[in-house]
Amino acid sequence: MSDLVTFGETMLRLSPPDERRLEDADEFEVLAGGAESNVAIAAQRLGMPATWLSKVPESPLGRRVVSELRGYGIDTDVVWSHRGRQGTYYLERAGTPRGTKVIYDRDDTAFATAEAREFDVDRVQNARVFFTTGITPALSSTLRDTTASMLKAARQGGTTTAFDFNYRRKLWSPEEAEETLTKLFPGIDVLVIAARDARSVLGFEGDPRQLAHKLGSQYEFETVVVTRGSEGAIGWHDSVVHEQGAYETDTVSKIGTGDAFTGAFIARRVSGDDVPTALEYAAATAALKRTIPGDVALVSEEEVEAVVSSGGEELSR
Amino acid sequence: MSDLVTFGETMLRLSPPDERRLEDADEFEVLAGGAESNVAIAAQRLGMPATWLSKVPESPLGRRVVSELRGYGIDTDVVWSHRGRQGTYYLERAGTPRGTKVIYDRDDTAFATAEAREFDVDRVQNARVFFTTGITPALSSTLRDTTASMLKAARQGGTTTAFDFNYRRKLWSPEEAEETLTKLFPGIDVLVIAARDARSVLGFEGDPRQLAHKLGSQYEFETVVVTRGSEGAIGWHDSVVHEQGAYETDTVSKIGTGDAFTGAFIARRVSGDDVPTALEYAAATAALKRTIPGDVALVSEEEVEAVVSSGGEELSR
Amino acid sequence: MSDLVTFGETMLRLSPPDERRLEDADEFEVLAGGAESNVAIAAQRLGMPATWLSKVPESPLGRRVVSELRGYGIDTDVVWSHRGRQGTYYLERAGTPRGTKVIYDRDDTAFATAEAREFDVDRVQNARVFFTTGITPALSSTLRDTTASMLKAARQGGTTTAFDFNYRRKLWSPEEAEETLTKLFPGIDVLVIAARDARSVLGFEGDPRQLAHKLGSQYEFETVVVTRGSEGAIGWHDSVVHEQGAYETDTVSKIGTGDAFTGAFIARRVSGDDVPTALEYAAATAALKRTIPGDVALVSEEEVEAVVSSGGEELSR
Amino acid sequence: MSDLVTFGETMLRLSPPDERRLEDADEFEVLAGGAESNVAIAAQRLGMPATWLSKVPESPLGRRVVSELRGYGIDTDVVWSHRGRQGTYYLERAGTPRGTKVIYDRDDTAFATAEAREFDVDRVQNARVFFTTGITPALSSTLRDTTASMLKAARQGGTTTAFDFNYRRKLWSPEEAEETLTKLFPGIDVLVIAARDARSVLGFEGDPRQLAHKLGSQYEFETVVVTRGSEGAIGWHDSVVHEQGAYETDTVSKIGTGDAFTGAFIARRVSGDDVPTALEYAAATAALKRTIPGDVALVSEEEVEAVVSSGGEELSR
Amino acid sequence: MSDLVTFGETMLRLSPPDERRLEDADEFEVLAGGAESNVAIAAQRLGMPATWLSKVPESPLGRRVVSELRGYGIDTDVVWSHRGRQGTYYLERAGTPRGTKVIYDRDDTAFATAEAREFDVDRVQNARVFFTTGITPALSSTLRDTTASMLKAARQGGTTTAFDFNYRRKLWSPEEAEETLTKLFPGIDVLVIAARDARSVLGFEGDPRQLAHKLGSQYEFETVVVTRGSEGAIGWHDSVVHEQGAYETDTVSKIGTGDAFTGAFIARRVSGDDVPTALEYAAATAALKRTIPGDVALVSEEEVEAVVSSGGEELSR
Amino acid sequence: MSDLVTFGETMLRLSPPDERRLEDADEFEVLAGGAESNVAIAAQRLGMPATWLSKVPESPLGRRVVSELRGYGIDTDVVWSHRGRQGTYYLERAGTPRGTKVIYDRDDTAFATAEAREFDVDRVQNARVFFTTGITPALSSTLRDTTASMLKAARQGGTTTAFDFNYRRKLWSPEEAEETLTKLFPGIDVLVIAARDARSVLGFEGDPRQLAHKLGSQYEFETVVVTRGSEGAIGWHDSVVHEQGAYETDTVSKIGTGDAFTGAFIARRVSGDDVPTALEYAAATAALKRTIPGDVALVSEEEVEAVVSSGGEELSR
Ligand SMILES: [Ca+2]
Ligand SMILES: [Ca+2]
Ligand SMILES: [Ca+2]
Ligand SMILES: [Ca+2]
Ligand SMILES: [Ca+2]
Ligand SMILES: [Ca+2]
Ligand SMILES: [Ca+2]
Ligand SMILES: [Ca+2]
Ligand SMILES: [Ca+2]
Ligand SMILES: [Ca+2]
Ligand SMILES: [Ca+2]
Ligand SMILES: [Ca+2]
Ligand code: NI
Ligand code: NI
Ligand code: NI
Ligand code: NI
Ligand code: NI
Ligand code: NI
Ligand code: NI
Ligand code: NI
Ligand code: NI
Ligand code: NI
Ligand code: NI
Ligand code: NI
Ligand code: NI
Ligand code: NI
Ligand code: NI
Ligand code: NI
Ligand code: NI
Ligand code: NI
Repeated sequence: MSDLVTFGETMLRLSPPDERRLEDADEFEVLAGGAESNVAIAAQRLGMPATWLSKVPESPLGRRVVSELRGYGIDTDVVWSHRGRQGTYYLERAGTPRGTKVIYDRDDTAFATAEAREFDVDRVQNARVFFTTGITPALSSTLRDTTASMLKAARQGGTTTAFDFNYRRKLWSPEEAEETLTKLFPGIDVLVIAARDARSVLGFEGDPRQLAHKLGSQYEFETVVVTRGSEGAIGWHDSVVHEQGAYETDTVSKIGTGDAFTGAFIARRVSGDDVPTALEYAAATAALKRTIPGDVALVSEEEVEAVVSSGGEELSR
Repeated sequence: MSDLVTFGETMLRLSPPDERRLEDADEFEVLAGGAESNVAIAAQRLGMPATWLSKVPESPLGRRVVSELRGYGIDTDVVWSHRGRQGTYYLERAGTPRGTKVIYDRDDTAFATAEAREFDVDRVQNARVFFTTGITPALSSTLRDTTASMLKAARQGGTTTAFDFNYRRKLWSPEEAEETLTKLFPGIDVLVIAARDARSVLGFEGDPRQLAHKLGSQYEFETVVVTRGSEGAIGWHDSVVHEQGAYETDTVSKIGTGDAFTGAFIARRVSGDDVPTALEYAAATAALKRTIPGDVALVSEEEVEAVVSSGGEELSR
Repeated sequence: MSDLVTFGETMLRLSPPDERRLEDADEFEVLAGGAESNVAIAAQRLGMPATWLSKVPESPLGRRVVSELRGYGIDTDVVWSHRGRQGTYYLERAGTPRGTKVIYDRDDTAFATAEAREFDVDRVQNARVFFTTGITPALSSTLRDTTASMLKAARQGGTTTAFDFNYRRKLWSPEEAEETLTKLFPGIDVLVIAARDARSVLGFEGDPRQLAHKLGSQYEFETVVVTRGSEGAIGWHDSVVHEQGAYETDTVSKIGTGDAFTGAFIARRVSGDDVPTALEYAAATAALKRTIPGDVALVSEEEVEAVVSSGGEELSR
Repeated sequence: MSDLVTFGETMLRLSPPDERRLEDADEFEVLAGGAESNVAIAAQRLGMPATWLSKVPESPLGRRVVSELRGYGIDTDVVWSHRGRQGTYYLERAGTPRGTKVIYDRDDTAFATAEAREFDVDRVQNARVFFTTGITPALSSTLRDTTASMLKAARQGGTTTAFDFNYRRKLWSPEEAEETLTKLFPGIDVLVIAARDARSVLGFEGDPRQLAHKLGSQYEFETVVVTRGSEGAIGWHDSVVHEQGAYETDTVSKIGTGDAFTGAFIARRVSGDDVPTALEYAAATAALKRTIPGDVALVSEEEVEAVVSSGGEELSR
Repeated sequence: MSDLVTFGETMLRLSPPDERRLEDADEFEVLAGGAESNVAIAAQRLGMPATWLSKVPESPLGRRVVSELRGYGIDTDVVWSHRGRQGTYYLERAGTPRGTKVIYDRDDTAFATAEAREFDVDRVQNARVFFTTGITPALSSTLRDTTASMLKAARQGGTTTAFDFNYRRKLWSPEEAEETLTKLFPGIDVLVIAARDARSVLGFEGDPRQLAHKLGSQYEFETVVVTRGSEGAIGWHDSVVHEQGAYETDTVSKIGTGDAFTGAFIARRVSGDDVPTALEYAAATAALKRTIPGDVALVSEEEVEAVVSSGGEELSR
Repeated sequence: MSDLVTFGETMLRLSPPDERRLEDADEFEVLAGGAESNVAIAAQRLGMPATWLSKVPESPLGRRVVSELRGYGIDTDVVWSHRGRQGTYYLERAGTPRGTKVIYDRDDTAFATAEAREFDVDRVQNARVFFTTGITPALSSTLRDTTASMLKAARQGGTTTAFDFNYRRKLWSPEEAEETLTKLFPGIDVLVIAARDARSVLGFEGDPRQLAHKLGSQYEFETVVVTRGSEGAIGWHDSVVHEQGAYETDTVSKIGTGDAFTGAFIARRVSGDDVPTALEYAAATAALKRTIPGDVALVSEEEVEAVVSSGGEELSR
């Protein structure tokens, strides 16, 4: 049995080499990319057995995604579907002022039809933590129901529920997101949210410490983590706020940094760390992730320990 | 003004290197692939100015397709759309007994919404030949109407209409295809059809010579070409049947062979060749195509002449 | 629990692109290669849950091997070792008269130190089939004992034991192999052996039918499969001999053909097929394997069924 | 009819991957590179239909160059030549202190023989702007005459003439360049020149503002743009000097930055922008170019607008 | 001191991957290619120390060529030139009916200016064999003199002179070749010539045995080898004719097959083999070459021995 | 005869592309890497003929290493061995905080068995400088004797002995290194040592100037160079200390920087430069090396001169 079960869609990610433009590409690098599988992998790497739950087409493309995730070490427990596409997205890397761009091609996927009854509720209820993100209910009305059902099942099974707000403006409006996601909040124990989303989607104001405190108090979360990109993160727990700086990195790929942070935070909390210690490991895992091409935190526990114990070079605290 | 105008969808074609499996791919070769653009390119290479008419998403992916086709030398006249996907397909190359496989991912494309009124009818009516294939009306009910309208406009403008039957079982049933396509037959001057499709979709019987003759007589086509893969082709015209063998080749990629044949046949007929001569150039162009990776006949007129005049090594006549 | 448990070493396989020479290589393709993991994968692909048991260094190279195998779908149950190398081998592909060549670099590996007590005997005793090959005891004297112990444990647990003779002249002499391997024979239910090895290592004579019969009778195996490369295989069971031809293929990679055959044979026998039917599926799986780059039979059950039901083009029967 | 017609040579550009040395290369990336085609592409991307006029060998190499340029969206109107080479150059990328190096191999090219009478004078006289650079007359004495003739024809046709001074020390001495190019000045309306060239080739002194003013006054240009690399540019028009800073960029390839600037400046001026606004778009286009591998500004008008409206992060003003 | 000294030009060879067309290439494989260096390498591989004499530009491109040749094991003794280009050629691979094509870009090279006085005559006079081909005098009138001078110096030094006729129609006419090369014949001991060239350039008639005999008798060569491509070769010596078949091969690259044959023949003759034995080793080396990508026979003496002793599968004798 | 003879092991270096992780690699870049060959190449590039002495397996892998080194221009004089492996190492590139990592796989190599009597003592005694590093005696007890013997032979032959301390903690403990290497000190004329090693292995204290002085005085070296990475180096000679700053670089690969420095220092000293001038050329060579991928300083003498004369941008002095 896995200690962590995550639920979400993982897409085929297609990207031209280096900073080449999509409109001029003659080859694509192929990888699997999805927030919930990223979190599972990061947690597993820090010693927490993890399973990714999903629904994928029974096709070479669906198998391609599952194969890569299994290769990274997690368990995969998927419903193989004969209807619906494999979601893909195109990634074009670029620096300032062009900026990295993403084109989603994820309508009508197999995952969008996933219903709670298709999954084994025991997997969720026997886990220590169940995790999904705000992307999942954004994908279809079916998934709105499924997300709610699975969070409910987890709560009933005594499983801690963790949720990354992860607002995606290419999927829905702030208003839709706010309405849908705040309804899920009562079923969530641990909320991870970007300061930016707390402000622009939920309408909170103040500095990140205040955001964390207001969120935690208003919705009665057990724990709130407010992330601030390269400026670190804030953890709120038992009405206490903890600040965590970000480590300096030679960044190769920013994508998946937040997922690495979240997966490591969950793994360390479950293994008994207090919030400040878990934040430290989370920041170290996120820093290592940024040195690794692709979306996934292919780190070892020893490497994370080494960053934490060396103190790294923290940019801000 | 182009002498040839073709109308159809061109997809992004994604394929793993060599004979690698899709489920194990970590890179994809990216090319544009579509029957109607292939035909335009082959005709242009044989000296007939050609334009490809289509509707594509205004996105890097749509631009990617158009850019490649322009690079091959044809003109592109496309409606840029803000709705609808860029169609893609995945190609996995393999020999016996695995066999090359294709996965289409072409639902809900921009092209599927293309209506006749979106295109400049003058382009079609000022051309000498208008060409499309049985794939186009298979893609959406809108396109069924559009195909009929465009064939009608061409006829009204005195433009010769040419049509490749091109039955695709992944798109529709033989019954649907028969019903739709035979309705278009009265508007078509030149029909190209595989012997296999004449039998299994249209229900004709007999050897290829008989198929050509029955088709030509029953539907009053001006010209019928029955293709037989590596065994050559039959041309029917003025109630006379002409046989053309296939040249021996070191085949690198079979895909697009038929399109190369058709494009060359059209170009040579329009330039004044009689049917047997046009068939000979068509067979030579198809043979050269098979030595070239990808879908497209990147040949020069001189190369085709050289094959014809050397006599090549014909396998059958 | 897996139905099939295999035990053996899987190496990092390093090979220059195409037919490039090792002495001139500037890049290597990296893959995992090992007979016992190949067999597990082929069996799993035909529907038999399979686990690969091994001992690998706790290093990025050891993780590299395990990750690839997990990605192919099997379970991996490995002892992570702090001593011993990851075995590698260099593969140089070539046709006649140069011939594909292999350079082993597999001395002093972690696997060579694997002792039976390091593995969970339940894994083996709860499986339906336990499989290893003649390569394993060739690797170290420790492994000679370990192989014997594991075969014994399997027999005690009521697990069928299957064994591929797999003589490798770069590892030991025919005399050493014969002495060691025939001692293991009493513990083996199903023997797979190349006709060539039966003759040159064990000293049997006669045509393949006779070899199978003599081996089966003399050593009291339950089943003997004598393989003949591109000429098919002979199955001996209950004193009856069955011949199976090989399918015609466009071969891309011969390596792993025998393992694909063996894995499929085991899977089909366990699922209830009689010997001739299992041989037919084995031959079809082997044929598909030859169309796939690399060592591994990345096939689906449906593809194998399709080859069997189409009859393929058998070269010999 | 194109609004912009440019005239010049475009070479095959061969470069080892990354920062690899030419003397150690085992593969070359192949691209087309030439200032005048770069300018045409940048202008076209900003909405100004553009044609590149040239003379190239009728060979696969000549076709290779033309194909790539057509793929970028411009029209190509070339004289196909049976004599003369395709010019090539080798590019070796490197940072400090090695520095990027270029080896020209462009003697005896087809283009060097281009005479004015080979081109359709209507193409030039019906355009709104005709553009070439100081590289063109540096290539042969024939091209000196041709450049003068084409500028004269443009002037006679009422076409605005734009010229980038572009001194290349590997092609001629400062003295030769000064003598030849100043003779062309009376036929030029818009001059673009690097501050460095104004000083070292033409012998002007002063800060860039002064250089622009002196050049404009002395030679009676309509507009002068003095470029300063990463420090921006100066525009002089109607005796007024305008300064434009450079945007901060994550630079991937500097090559073609100036051409992107010039093409965008021309396009925006022709579309009605005043000089300061055109300079702003030019700087934004140049900034985007620097994030794109290769020589060419594969940007969209929307991307340029976005940089201008965000204000970017200007380094200097 | 080397036993074999060869003199000739080696070019940079640029080729698209696989069978891709030059006009569509976006990367080139880079190799050094030249008949005289190929022969030196083949001889060295069979145990005869060899030096390649040439003149190359002192540039990264010149160093690139020399570096690759040194890496193959021969000595290089080159005049570094500050004038003249590095010769290049473009290779496009293709099967029937397209055919592999070569575009030379080798005018005005540094090598074309090579004069005999620039080389150390001792190198040639202390060698056992001096070798060049009919390509060398075809490249410039300077090289016609140089070739004659070096053959003369070799003869004076007691060095055996070997010469491959190697007619190249892209370099000169049959008449020019005949006139120039027959003047060199009196200075040549060992002539290698394709049957095709003996007929179409020199006007001889008859079967290959007759060609060898007529050539040997008329020009008083010590040894004549008439090559017949895939049909083997004829050796004439002491008025006796020896036939040698070709081995069957899985051909990957035909280029350089003749050079491999010649280099091996020279090496074996010098080591004391009689003509038939040397022809056998030459044929085996040529067969191995055909399995190796590129122009060069990267074989070992052991591999050649193995082919000879196994008898291979000779196609014809 | 070479002026410089170096003695050491060069490994096959296998590395994934870019910053990819070893555990996820599907291709490796292949290069030869070794300190003593790096030093020979740097010296040769600065005009000092150099030979690398070693012992390698007679295998494609051994030939691969030798071929690459010959291609870089040095002479190779190796004992071909039928026993022992080719050493390899795996390199994983990464920035902060992950850090570049190396996995050695160099036990039981052919080189580890190299004895002094296997090499031609004349090669060493006729050279002007003999060079090896602290890596060599760390590899086996045999090599401890061999290193001592070769240094002794060099001294007897009047050859200057140069030695880079090069402590490698993955090969031995500081205590072992200190004991072994200080015994060699009396036979060494020129010592190069990192300040870090002087402190942590030899136990010296003080700033780099003091380290150099203490080392030089205590062990009576003729010259001591203390290197300080990106902070430059200290040269001690005739009791005078000279400081040399490091040039600013856009670093692509740090590996081999120290070897480039040492090789250049030796070459310039031998050519007559005083210590401060030699240090300046050494720093310039090291700076250029950092702009070049791989381990080797593929520079030209002209490039080094250009950096020295431009003054570069020194970071510290
Ligand atoms: Ca391409
Ligand atoms: Ca391209
Ligand atoms: Ca990968
Ligand atoms: Ca390939
Ligand atoms: Ca390389
Ligand atoms: Ca790269
Ligand atoms: Ca190479
Ligand atoms: Ca190389
Ligand atoms: Ca392309
Ligand atoms: Ca490209
Ligand atoms: Ca992979
Ligand atoms: Ca892979
Ligand atoms: Ni690439
Ligand atoms: Ni590429
Ligand atoms: Ni490419
Ligand atoms: Ni590629
Ligand atoms: Ni890859
Ligand atoms: Ni790759
Ligand atoms: Ni490479
Ligand atoms: Ni590469
Ligand atoms: Ni390469
Ligand atoms: Ni490569
Ligand atoms: Ni390569
Ligand atoms: Ni490559
Ligand atoms: Ni490519
Ligand atoms: Ni590529
Ligand atoms: Ni790659
Ligand atoms: Ni790959
Ligand atoms: Ni790859
Ligand atoms: Ni690749």
